[in-house]
Amino acid sequence: MAEFRPGSADQDELRQDLLSHGLLVASGVPGLYGHGSAFDDVVTALDRTVTAAAAVDRPERFRFPPLLAREYLERNNYLESFPHLAGTVFSFEGGNGEASEQAERAARGEDWSEFQHITDLVLTPAACYPAYPAMGARGPLPPGGVTLDLGAAWVFRHEPSGDPARMQSFHQREVVRMGAPDEVCAWRDTWRDRAVALLRSVGLDANADVATDPFFGRGARMLAASQRQQQLKFEILVQIAGPEATAVASFNYHQEHFAATYGISTFDGATAHTACLGFGLERITIALLRVHGFDPAAWPASVRAVLWP
Amino acid sequence: MAEFRPGSADQDELRQDLLSHGLLVASGVPGLYGHGSAFDDVVTALDRTVTAAAAVDRPERFRFPPLLAREYLERNNYLESFPHLAGTVFSFEGGNGEASEQAERAARGEDWSEFQHITDLVLTPAACYPAYPAMGARGPLPPGGVTLDLGAAWVFRHEPSGDPARMQSFHQREVVRMGAPDEVCAWRDTWRDRAVALLRSVGLDANADVATDPFFGRGARMLAASQRQQQLKFEILVQIAGPEATAVASFNYHQEHFAATYGISTFDGATAHTACLGFGLERITIALLRVHGFDPAAWPASVRAVLWP
Repeated sequence: MAEFRPGSADQDELRQDLLSHGLLVASGVPGLYGHGSAFDDVVTALDRTVTAAAAVDRPERFRFPPLLAREYLERNNYLESFPHLAGTVFSFEGGNGEASEQAERAARGEDWSEFQHITDLVLTPAACYPAYPAMGARGPLPPGGVTLDLGAAWVFRHEPSGDPARMQSFHQREVVRMGAPDEVCAWRDTWRDRAVALLRSVGLDANADVATDPFFGRGARMLAASQRQQQLKFEILVQIAGPEATAVASFNYHQEHFAATYGISTFDGATAHTACLGFGLERITIALLRVHGFDPAAWPASVRAVLWP
Repeated sequence: MAEFRPGSADQDELRQDLLSHGLLVASGVPGLYGHGSAFDDVVTALDRTVTAAAAVDRPERFRFPPLLAREYLERNNYLESFPHLAGTVFSFEGGNGEASEQAERAARGEDWSEFQHITDLVLTPAACYPAYPAMGARGPLPPGGVTLDLGAAWVFRHEPSGDPARMQSFHQREVVRMGAPDEVCAWRDTWRDRAVALLRSVGLDANADVATDPFFGRGARMLAASQRQQQLKFEILVQIAGPEATAVASFNYHQEHFAATYGISTFDGATAHTACLGFGLERITIALLRVHGFDPAAWPASVRAVLWP
């Protein structure tokens, strides 16, 4: 079981406040929460605000479930870089005897995992993953490439934490660009500025910075240094609670990585480049509640005008 | 691995049509699909239509993630009745050596499941499950009980199938009633008629019938007979493809089951009764596409007027 990372004092207080106001609903597991209606109102409004901001790119829409074919995770290097964050789906195999034994052990609070076997499904760790094989299967991109709006997708990270902004199951509000390298880089840069402006327009002190992924184990430092040096990842940071600012949006430039793996090519036959941007809807919602107070109806009119135009 | 259930000839043809029109997107796993934009338009419209129909009950809204605390599944008898449908979340435990070995085996297509260990999370098998402990923790219900609108939640059933209407990961559009027995029964009966009328208003030949759950193993026949005799489950059925009509909505009357397990009481201290209703949004969408054609823009004006008022 992944080690529980306790929250700082102010993170614990924020979590308790969110629960006691009915904004979040406890599940019994750290980092897994239901959303009360006021929280959901803000998540929905943010989703709509991003949809409106993305409309200028005339994106094609897709929606993907919270699960992914296991094979995709096996092929795209995720298990090398982030084995500690991945979740796999297991399920029962057996007959009447095993089913009875499993149910009895579960009811007694004993270990029943031996009756569970790996399936061909995993939890989606990043909202954009299912889009790459889907686009690869479709054939070459049109001239100018494509922009995909993937909506608000549930993703999973196995990192139980007392920080309410570090959830195990949360929404990534994701947009993806696929095309020639210059098209993809220009899009990424435009969106970095657009996302900072969007978050500032709702009263958050948001700033973009070069960032690295939380790589696992021995090679982590080298991978992070290379990622940083090539400026492949940007994050938009907001101070929520805890000693450091929290990333509420991130931009990843994958160069040829996904396109080569899943056979995505530009109209002229070259391997495409891809980039994605994801807004963490729950994190932004928590940041807004922290800054403007726990009652969204009482937020500043300028903020409400952006979210509920 | 659960056995794949092949589709009938007309189910296979329907699945191919949905994929070739870009309405569904293949994932490589049977019963796991992305949604193209036209498909998502219909899912979203149906969600909104149910929200509007439920507004008369003045429900409180909650949204829950696609995961649930494992402990809840262990306590509510699900593993006795439906061990074959449940999905559990496993995750990596180990150091650098195990991580490398796991990644190498995965890349070679070999079994890497031994490095995965059970977590305290499972996949949500029914959209209403997280609502019972949440309401139990809050204290007695107000007079008249409560109605909860749980929105469109992702649920999981481990039953890989060639029938496109039998997905492993899909949206249940769920509403829950908690209160005194007569309040709950009256609500259930009202909604059964309301749901039939709603589905007929979009041109589906929908009919309600008493139903049973797909219980596992030895006790299945007895449990189903008891459930049928007490009329605890109703379904609304529509002919989509295959030899039998498909359930596109279901109503479950749990009597005291969940309330006793999670301590939900009425305002006067009695154990509450609960009932839920769930619309299968993907199934209804597929039924509409089958009946009215693969281009929602060309559907009859009377149907479009209900979905896009």
